[in-house]
Amino acid sequence: MRTVVHIPTGDEAEQETGLAIARNLLEDETDSIDEVALVAQGGGIATVRDDGDTVDKIKSLLEDGVAVSACSNTLDMMDLEESDLVSGVETVPEGAVEVTRLQDEGYAYLRP
Amino acid sequence: MRTVVHIPTGDEAEQETGLAIARNLLEDETDSIDEVALVAQGGGIATVRDDGDTVDKIKSLLEDGVAVSACSNTLDMMDLEESDLVSGVETVPEGAVEVTRLQDEGYAYLRP
Amino acid sequence: MRTVVHIPTGDEAEQETGLAIARNLLEDETDSIDEVALVAQGGGIATVRDDGDTVDKIKSLLEDGVAVSACSNTLDMMDLEESDLVSGVETVPEGAVEVTRLQDEGYAYLRP
Repeated sequence: MRTVVHIPTGDEAEQETGLAIARNLLEDETDSIDEVALVAQGGGIATVRDDGDTVDKIKSLLEDGVAVSACSNTLDMMDLEESDLVSGVETVPEGAVEVTRLQDEGYAYLRP
Repeated sequence: MRTVVHIPTGDEAEQETGLAIARNLLEDETDSIDEVALVAQGGGIATVRDDGDTVDKIKSLLEDGVAVSACSNTLDMMDLEESDLVSGVETVPEGAVEVTRLQDEGYAYLRP
Repeated sequence: MRTVVHIPTGDEAEQETGLAIARNLLEDETDSIDEVALVAQGGGIATVRDDGDTVDKIKSLLEDGVAVSACSNTLDMMDLEESDLVSGVETVPEGAVEVTRLQDEGYAYLRP
């Protein structure tokens, strides 16, 4: 099974829950989760910035194979560049389209 | 691909994100999104009221083909009538059932 | 159709919306919803504690056939036991995996 964790929110507690959920999916004892994706957009972009509080958690998720994406549309609105993101985070044109695409491919959806 | 944006929340930032996501899905450059639906219920009903701050955004989404639904169950609880909603917003008996039905038809789900 | 209501949040308004949505799905007049599941994790565990404000609502959902699950991972982090939960609430190793599994089985997803 595959799961996409969607982080569209500026709420820090929800952001932390989202990162914890991605971690827990990786550590699933039943080993039934094959792929985990994380898509950040809107206020959730804070989670993937390289000057944020969650840099270590994002690096760790990337190292363990999570596909982490950031919405370019949001980056434009916030005057951010790809170089402002944790190294390894991919950009996608629009986060909502990416989350749709992943569900269309069979990913389950989780919104912390 | 098709997507339903679910707005069950009274949080204004999340409501704004939901409307922005619906707009962004319409403007997707890859043109891969065929249909967008928006379902408002609970506190999210504020987004589709004709005396609210988001009237112009809802009108614009409707003009561009988004199917916007409001939960009648919520309207009853809030003593609101269909005439209190932006013209063109459809009512459905229960928002949660409508969101279930759309996913059953193959819509991806997004919760801002 | 089948639906899983995911409650990962400590926000009380969202928790109440989640329980109301589960109730409304049961009472659907079109009788199109065959099964309802509810998965609580993170701050959402408050909704299934036997010393909380929502005990009666959870008991009522359980009586009417809703499968209510609590994340054991969260219980461990909060130093809670299964005996601290409303009787009839099942535990699952990890809430996010359970929500993924249910979607993989065809359940629609709702996040209040």
